[in-house]
Amino acid sequence: MDDNSIKHFPVIKVMEAGNRNTSDMLAVEEPLEIRLKYMADGQPIVKNISVTMRTPGNDAELATGFLFTEGIVKDYSDIASAGHLYIACSENKHNTIQVELQEGVSPSLQSAERNFYSTSSCGVCGKGSIDAIRTTSIYTHKTDCFTTDAELLYGLPEVLRYYQTAFASTGGIHASALFNAKGELIMIREDVGRHNALDKLIGAALKEGWLPLTDKILLLSGRASFELVQKAAMAGVCTIAAVGAPSSLAVELAEEFNITLAGFLRGRRFNIYSGANRIILPTNEVTY
Amino acid sequence: MDDNSIKHFPVIKVMEAGNRNTSDMLAVEEPLEIRLKYMADGQPIVKNISVTMRTPGNDAELATGFLFTEGIVKDYSDIASAGHLYIACSENKHNTIQVELQEGVSPSLQSAERNFYSTSSCGVCGKGSIDAIRTTSIYTHKTDCFTTDAELLYGLPEVLRYYQTAFASTGGIHASALFNAKGELIMIREDVGRHNALDKLIGAALKEGWLPLTDKILLLSGRASFELVQKAAMAGVCTIAAVGAPSSLAVELAEEFNITLAGFLRGRRFNIYSGANRIILPTNEVTY
Repeated sequence: MDDNSIKHFPVIKVMEAGNRNTSDMLAVEEPLEIRLKYMADGQPIVKNISVTMRTPGNDAELATGFLFTEGIVKDYSDIASAGHLYIACSENKHNTIQVELQEGVSPSLQSAERNFYSTSSCGVCGKGSIDAIRTTSIYTHKTDCFTTDAELLYGLPEVLRYYQTAFASTGGIHASALFNAKGELIMIREDVGRHNALDKLIGAALKEGWLPLTDKILLLSGRASFELVQKAAMAGVCTIAAVGAPSSLAVELAEEFNITLAGFLRGRRFNIYSGANRIILPTNEVTY
Repeated sequence: MDDNSIKHFPVIKVMEAGNRNTSDMLAVEEPLEIRLKYMADGQPIVKNISVTMRTPGNDAELATGFLFTEGIVKDYSDIASAGHLYIACSENKHNTIQVELQEGVSPSLQSAERNFYSTSSCGVCGKGSIDAIRTTSIYTHKTDCFTTDAELLYGLPEVLRYYQTAFASTGGIHASALFNAKGELIMIREDVGRHNALDKLIGAALKEGWLPLTDKILLLSGRASFELVQKAAMAGVCTIAAVGAPSSLAVELAEEFNITLAGFLRGRRFNIYSGANRIILPTNEVTY
């Protein structure tokens, strides 16, 4: 987290031992406008794609990760630049970022408009949302997924907590992290919005040329919603471990995309909701 | 929660004592399309306003609450009806809801487009987001807010947990609840999305004719983001207590709207971030 991601506020801490006037560090939340610039018919076009409430920091990764997980941009090489625009505002904040595409590259803006929620053939439904991802994702067929030992998974949340310095101080930050097959933390991103934390992580991994993320484990600090599993699917993730609960549609999406999804990873236990074949269980004993 | 809000999934519970093939109840997550129908120049217009991932149940409340907190609809009497549309889909699910306005009522759609994130005078910034709420909200001047005893606040999360039967079984549901000045739970709504839980609650309160909610305490089961405090401000809430942390912009918005905001309400302690004058502290002793 950078310096803009935490802000001090005066606070009264109410405790039985006595109340205390002190200050508290809170996670900063500010809007970020993501603009896309590209050429169409020889003319430059600038489109406002999205405004998201995010924690400042890693904004270029957030913007490129968002454009990729929404299916608007297909490859990192399509991007010419990503940087803040210094637009006059009552505050001196950098809340607008512009991603410029290489010449000759057209964005898939119909993907963004559909937004994975509906298909033309039917009304809005979860099944339709899953189908929409299938047609948009470039990593639907994962071939080189690896198996993970349950023992390795147990240790991941503790590593996350250790590195999540911002969480320790503000208590209000979600994290997404990538671990390698040995269980070593290789990348972590944080945000007040869980979807932003994952977009930042995927944007950074995209820049590193790591996609598809078949050889990494994605750890989510909280719950696994449809939106998070959708983003993971777009990035070719094989294995997701979440500290919290998954939703119904998150499990259905993981099943459809052959993604291993573990939830409630706490202490030395967790639940496997899909793709159990990729997890080596601590004992062979399974009761029914 | 109704029957559609929970779904059983097969799960392998991995534990040191042995693994178990069993089933787990998960919170259902499905898209909901909110459509608005109104007359313009003698012609009926139907607009797709939003698609949100929500837990089915209280959909009419969610839709009307959303339209109100976004500033699109100003009064419950503006609404003629709110009900599901039975649109053909591969699944037999009710994921489209249409809110029809009374004849002669026009929606404030520019509010939705601005979406509280930016003003015309400047770029996207937190201050601008707060200013936008000031021009949209009809409850900027709250007159009859009440004071709350810290002792009363301590007990609220436990009451919430007791009533949150869905949380107990799925572990993946956010709740928003209203308590009266005596600390009695009078309304609770749940959802996989925290913003949806609050929209459902405000939609239900709107229907009951309770707004502005100056004589109630709003309890949030998790963190207090800008979006949640914004919705509370739109509904005229004076006092918000959150189990989790607030964000920077949530505190700034609460200060601007003279909303009492308590966070980290756990056991017999909490932090006051704004509006401390409305909370009677357990001891007079305050250390610095």
